[in-house]
Amino acid sequence: MDEAIEKQLSPLRVRVKEQGDKVREMKAAGAPDIDIKKEVLDLKARRKELEELTLKLDPPDTFDRSKMADLVKRRFFYDNSFAIYGGITGQYDLGPLGCDLTRNMLEEWHKHFVLQEHMLSVSCSILTPEPVLKASGHMDKFADYMVKDTLSGECYRLDHLIKLHLEKKVSDKKTSAAEKAELGLVLNRLDGMDVGELGALVKKHDMKSPSTGNPLTEPVEFNLMFPITIGPSGAIRGFLRPETAQGIFVNFKRLLEFNQNRLPFAAAQVGNAYRNEISPRSGLLRVREFTMAEIEHFCDPDDKSHPKFDSVSNLEMRLYSAEAQMAGESVRNITIGEAVRGGLVANETLGYYMARIQQYLLKIGIKEKKLRFRQHMANEMAHYACDCWDAECLTSYGWIECVGCADRSAYDLTCHAKATGVKLSVERPLPEPKDVETVTPVLDNKLIGKTFLKQSKEVQEALAALSIEDAETLDKNLTADGKYTLPGTSFELTRSMIPSLKREIKKVHVEEIVPSVIEPSFGIGRVFYALLEQTFTVREDDDKRTYFALPTIVAPVKVSVLPLSSKPEFEPFTKQLASALTKCNLSVKIDDSTGSIGRRYARTDEVSIPFAVTIDFDTLSSSPHTVTLRERDSTLQVRIPVSEVAPTVQRLAASELQWSDVLARWPRFAQQEATK
Amino acid sequence: MDEAIEKQLSPLRVRVKEQGDKVREMKAAGAPDIDIKKEVLDLKARRKELEELTLKLDPPDTFDRSKMADLVKRRFFYDNSFAIYGGITGQYDLGPLGCDLTRNMLEEWHKHFVLQEHMLSVSCSILTPEPVLKASGHMDKFADYMVKDTLSGECYRLDHLIKLHLEKKVSDKKTSAAEKAELGLVLNRLDGMDVGELGALVKKHDMKSPSTGNPLTEPVEFNLMFPITIGPSGAIRGFLRPETAQGIFVNFKRLLEFNQNRLPFAAAQVGNAYRNEISPRSGLLRVREFTMAEIEHFCDPDDKSHPKFDSVSNLEMRLYSAEAQMAGESVRNITIGEAVRGGLVANETLGYYMARIQQYLLKIGIKEKKLRFRQHMANEMAHYACDCWDAECLTSYGWIECVGCADRSAYDLTCHAKATGVKLSVERPLPEPKDVETVTPVLDNKLIGKTFLKQSKEVQEALAALSIEDAETLDKNLTADGKYTLPGTSFELTRSMIPSLKREIKKVHVEEIVPSVIEPSFGIGRVFYALLEQTFTVREDDDKRTYFALPTIVAPVKVSVLPLSSKPEFEPFTKQLASALTKCNLSVKIDDSTGSIGRRYARTDEVSIPFAVTIDFDTLSSSPHTVTLRERDSTLQVRIPVSEVAPTVQRLAASELQWSDVLARWPRFAQQEATK
Repeated sequence: MDEAIEKQLSPLRVRVKEQGDKVREMKAAGAPDIDIKKEVLDLKARRKELEELTLKLDPPDTFDRSKMADLVKRRFFYDNSFAIYGGITGQYDLGPLGCDLTRNMLEEWHKHFVLQEHMLSVSCSILTPEPVLKASGHMDKFADYMVKDTLSGECYRLDHLIKLHLEKKVSDKKTSAAEKAELGLVLNRLDGMDVGELGALVKKHDMKSPSTGNPLTEPVEFNLMFPITIGPSGAIRGFLRPETAQGIFVNFKRLLEFNQNRLPFAAAQVGNAYRNEISPRSGLLRVREFTMAEIEHFCDPDDKSHPKFDSVSNLEMRLYSAEAQMAGESVRNITIGEAVRGGLVANETLGYYMARIQQYLLKIGIKEKKLRFRQHMANEMAHYACDCWDAECLTSYGWIECVGCADRSAYDLTCHAKATGVKLSVERPLPEPKDVETVTPVLDNKLIGKTFLKQSKEVQEALAALSIEDAETLDKNLTADGKYTLPGTSFELTRSMIPSLKREIKKVHVEEIVPSVIEPSFGIGRVFYALLEQTFTVREDDDKRTYFALPTIVAPVKVSVLPLSSKPEFEPFTKQLASALTKCNLSVKIDDSTGSIGRRYARTDEVSIPFAVTIDFDTLSSSPHTVTLRERDSTLQVRIPVSEVAPTVQRLAASELQWSDVLARWPRFAQQEATK
Repeated sequence: MDEAIEKQLSPLRVRVKEQGDKVREMKAAGAPDIDIKKEVLDLKARRKELEELTLKLDPPDTFDRSKMADLVKRRFFYDNSFAIYGGITGQYDLGPLGCDLTRNMLEEWHKHFVLQEHMLSVSCSILTPEPVLKASGHMDKFADYMVKDTLSGECYRLDHLIKLHLEKKVSDKKTSAAEKAELGLVLNRLDGMDVGELGALVKKHDMKSPSTGNPLTEPVEFNLMFPITIGPSGAIRGFLRPETAQGIFVNFKRLLEFNQNRLPFAAAQVGNAYRNEISPRSGLLRVREFTMAEIEHFCDPDDKSHPKFDSVSNLEMRLYSAEAQMAGESVRNITIGEAVRGGLVANETLGYYMARIQQYLLKIGIKEKKLRFRQHMANEMAHYACDCWDAECLTSYGWIECVGCADRSAYDLTCHAKATGVKLSVERPLPEPKDVETVTPVLDNKLIGKTFLKQSKEVQEALAALSIEDAETLDKNLTADGKYTLPGTSFELTRSMIPSLKREIKKVHVEEIVPSVIEPSFGIGRVFYALLEQTFTVREDDDKRTYFALPTIVAPVKVSVLPLSSKPEFEPFTKQLASALTKCNLSVKIDDSTGSIGRRYARTDEVSIPFAVTIDFDTLSSSPHTVTLRERDSTLQVRIPVSEVAPTVQRLAASELQWSDVLARWPRFAQQEATK
């Protein structure tokens, strides 16, 4: 970055660092959490300020969102769902191009992750019963706040409403400069405010319903999951899953068996998930129905090394550490090997996946300079995670989280094991056998049976499962009072039922461990959107000609066939080429519409088709018959025999051949681009 | 079929034919629908009787359902969802093998249909607002009947409950032979009975709740769609889609544009759909959440020829026509060309898709003899369809509908156009221009504006849209009464607002047509299940060794690598082979567990891996290093250089090479199968 810019950024960097140091000191001094939280909010606001100025002073390539939206809509990459019924916000249908682009992205994902890493694929139910999501924490925590129009009942997401209101005020000419500056600071802090602070803002600024001007209710919590009932009686309550991960966790035992009871292993799932957003906006970035691709890598909590780490350790990455964020510094280029060795990234497995994520994103067309990995600061991280990095892509909406990569520790398996009583752990051989003390209550089973009848089995199981401490407590109480009610139950036990405790020393050879989970989690729709923005291109010589410069590997259609004339002599060539290309499993678009060849090239570029084959009048007369083959980005053409087209395009599509090889091999052709 | 069997079947054939003729005569005589329906029920019962005896006398290969269930569960092809939480009936999770098999089936489907036929892929929302499903007819008609336990509230699907009850009675020793015969007839007729007849059976046999013995409620209708509300206010009511088709219909206009406004074209969608079954059973055959793959082919209603029909016209198919079903005849082998020419199959496009469906099913491993196409009889057909054939696969549950192939005429587009007012039609050029009479009301727009104010635009539009007849009616009424209220509105119009009618003759060059829809619709889970059953194999020499003989093209894992020893010298070979195979995008399973090679072959067969590479002691010493390559079904092995393994398996997997070619090329190897 140039010096002049750095000079302007410098004071903001200092502001961030000051605040970062303050937070650090407070933590070191053991200040109360609530006080630290407040300062972290301020820290984030300053960081955001720095980021915004950085983007303003050193802007990415100009990008015209409305131009892209026009192309996306006109050529039906995607559109609002049920548009003829008025559409539904937060839901989109993928048209042919969007659908094929997504399919190609996912196919490459499958090869890159599942095949290359020998992962176990699963496909689990979307309809999820309540107890599963109670255990996972989603029923209690997966909520946003909203306020309602007291008369019309319309709902607004609390933070969005405030943002809208304050931004309007900032852009109002009547607002003083001082007020504007203050509101700007508040806006930057919004993200981390709690419901009390947000509610106070609504009152302070006397906000009303934006569409009616009616008063608003107090903020209420709204769980983002879609409730459903399964079966006709309404007895089984559940939700549409809010993420795909839980399906993998509840199948852990079967998957471990499948892997012959060995760690580490990874399971992968691609599928839909649902969030009933209060007021979705930002197009594809916040929707109610979306595709995720998630990997859960289960490993020994005490050994998170990765056997293939060496193969990526020299990969340079743009890491934006929590440290740097607190110090007002920028993204740092560093190899993942160094990052793990230096302790910046928690462990090899986490680092390995970060590297693989980067390789994947670059392969499908995300730009290196518009990709960074941002580490969650301690106060952002979910309570169960020990380290978490988001792959963020730069778009016109700013830096957008597209892939999360977290070390979730043993949190999920522990939750489900607790909720179900099913052991979700792995036996790990001990380096050497160990003596372990056990304390078991000695039972008079006959007496217990007579006393508790049908429930006696339950009593026996509860007693067998007592910890050493609980067994001691039981024994002490029985000695003192002669009776004892088992905590959490209504079973009153007497001394004669449990005359004594048996103490033993047992030799054990294995220990039970709950695996740690490393989770790379892809929001496919967000990657898809970022990819469209980052590859959207306007031709230098004609700003009306726009197209997506997608890599061939993900381009929805690989090749177009354009007969220059509708004369019947052209038809056999069109058919022959289409059939040969289709046989190679290449998706082909035949454009035999009238219209100049230049216009047809523009049409074929628009939808990102990397190669175009044109049948012209020379095709008819040449021997062997030749056609032209044109590459989208360079618009260069060669003249090539008809029979060579399919194998050449197939090898280009499989990256076995580069366009430069084609240019070297076949004679250049230079006509047709203009209207003929 | 042998003569002795035919002799036993003959009287049943006669019974069917008698009844078929009766139905035909009644139709010809114009008998009331309700009477015909009754006789059709009896016809179906007789047909079923014939089918059951046919299967009994000429049974398919023995099949042990519990043996397959054991393998499916043990190796986690699929399992009940949320098993550790007690599971949910009617929901299944696909484990690694089931997931990869499904993926491969769908990938082949994509190549076979979407790529080869240049279809437009789409991916539409699952959350569907109510008006869409109101228009499609699902809100009114997509229901089953159930009865409830009056005390516990437990629900039972009415026909299932009756079936269970009657079957129990039939197998009861106390039931007389005459009673049994009568009950058998009733059972065969159940499928087509209406709610009145079913309710009468419940009363007649005094049926109670099977689990509690409590009385039951009267039958109530239960809509099978899962209701949801979209957004936080609960204002947008909707459902999880019950089929994927509607998403294509509502996008028709955009897709037509995408296809440059030309017919025919086909759109394809793969995705989940949901049915809230009352009491799901029969494993994967009746579930609440399932994957469909649907194609909607839009074509000119007056020209349903297909340009590629010739390429399939010689394909022989097993067709079970409505005619044959009514005459007590069997399936008939006939080429699809003959079937269309003879009018048995309604048109070329329908026939083309039937042929392509058969080609697909055989390619993925469905057995020719266990596949038939059954035509819907006139009374079974949905009211909008003009011809409908189901691809049925034979399983231990009988002949199961796996793919439907229907000509849905213009039904769906007409419904949605009516509901939305959006034109869902295509302009077709007329052979020659045509004179058309138009009649338009002449309006005093000023007066209308003054009278109706804000609503005047609506009034004008309604008047502009009047048909000739309605305009004449309007004019007549205005002349007679001086005023007229537009039907369906509250707009009172006067003579002065509409002084006269304008009559014109216009020359038109195109006509609007609503395309017909031909719909092949795949229940992927059902094809998946039928495929597992039909390929389940028990080794002739050892009935404990079971496996799935899946074609390589869909086998979940293509190749296994088995080092004969765990000595470190073997490891480089394992790594080298795994890496070379993975680079070819082949899914590889390394089994380096201890255990005899025979047991490991059995394990690798079980999960249907078609090829196994074994690294043995000769591998270490041979030069060049060689390994053995084994084929699953024949268990034959060859000895082949390490470097040849990956390219050979890749070509085998792509069907570019047959196993017989491998046997011819490399020396046979005959050891190892036994324990070493």
